[in-house]
Amino acid sequence: MAANDGSIFEAPETTEDEIIHATYEALCDHGYADLTIQRIADHFPKSKSLIYNHYDGKDELLLEFLAFMLEEFKRSIPGEVDGDPRARLEGVLDDILDPSPPERLLQFEAAMVELRAQAVNDERYRTAFARHDRFFSARLVEGIQAGIDDGSFRDADPEQVADFVITVLAGVRYYRATRPATDVTAIREGLDAYLESMLYAQE
Amino acid sequence: MAANDGSIFEAPETTEDEIIHATYEALCDHGYADLTIQRIADHFPKSKSLIYNHYDGKDELLLEFLAFMLEEFKRSIPGEVDGDPRARLEGVLDDILDPSPPERLLQFEAAMVELRAQAVNDERYRTAFARHDRFFSARLVEGIQAGIDDGSFRDADPEQVADFVITVLAGVRYYRATRPATDVTAIREGLDAYLESMLYAQE
Repeated sequence: MAANDGSIFEAPETTEDEIIHATYEALCDHGYADLTIQRIADHFPKSKSLIYNHYDGKDELLLEFLAFMLEEFKRSIPGEVDGDPRARLEGVLDDILDPSPPERLLQFEAAMVELRAQAVNDERYRTAFARHDRFFSARLVEGIQAGIDDGSFRDADPEQVADFVITVLAGVRYYRATRPATDVTAIREGLDAYLESMLYAQE
Repeated sequence: MAANDGSIFEAPETTEDEIIHATYEALCDHGYADLTIQRIADHFPKSKSLIYNHYDGKDELLLEFLAFMLEEFKRSIPGEVDGDPRARLEGVLDDILDPSPPERLLQFEAAMVELRAQAVNDERYRTAFARHDRFFSARLVEGIQAGIDDGSFRDADPEQVADFVITVLAGVRYYRATRPATDVTAIREGLDAYLESMLYAQE
């Protein structure tokens, strides 16, 4: 999800991809609260009426956007469990806890915090984010289980470790979007201490 | 902050307290997105015009509400560092990571997640939450430092430990508000493992 320039997209090919891409740009620029179809259209190379032909409104479009993002997310964390389980887990953490992430990625994360807050009162957003959560959790659990199976990790409850890691990462994204100068390095060191104790330490 | 019935208030005495109390009730019932002055007025025993006399609009009222909540929060975590530092720290965690919190408290937490998401694009909310964050962080740092000083805790960087704990708690509140069935017990066990390694283990 974190390409070096902070953009998450290849060149879009279909009209639908162009709409999703324009939604991403507008969301990064304006956030959820100030997002309008017009602002999405400003990033869309074709006629605005095409957006209305595809979607009934801002939230319908954003829910489609979240479904698209889930597919991107799946591509970024492949299922094949190759290589060293510890290196694999730390790769995921390095990616999300990058101490100096591209500005565009921070804008995107912040917009995702706003979108996720819609899940408090909107069942559709809750369902969309539940899909993201289940996927991420399942991938982490698989990776931890693989490490336990091949003896890289000590015996632990993979669901519990995954839950803890995901909650820490959620807290980081939530705080990084809503308070200035969140120090990700301290969080990473804390997670390392936790993982040392739960997974890495010899039994 | 977590009284047993989930309410955070004594009987309000002044008109301003009554408005804040009505805001709390309306926020728990409807969340931020669907909050209106009318819905606040529904919980206010006096004339709705009094609310308009005091506040220019929903956000001005909510910012005042957050300032009020900060004072409540300060009362709930007193500064005097008495007693066992570990018991004190765990008391805070027990309070926030209650495995079966009152429904009203969950509604309130969820509304606070929506409010905090406003900080993404609204400087006023960012400032208000920064005050909460600074206070909570300072109290935790004081408590951890006291434990290091009296030998209850091993030598650690109090800011770093406080940052980590606060981030985990933020993640819990954020997720508990936006996904069903968040298991707080697993998170507590993870935090205990972290604290064991960082603070409790003998050197």
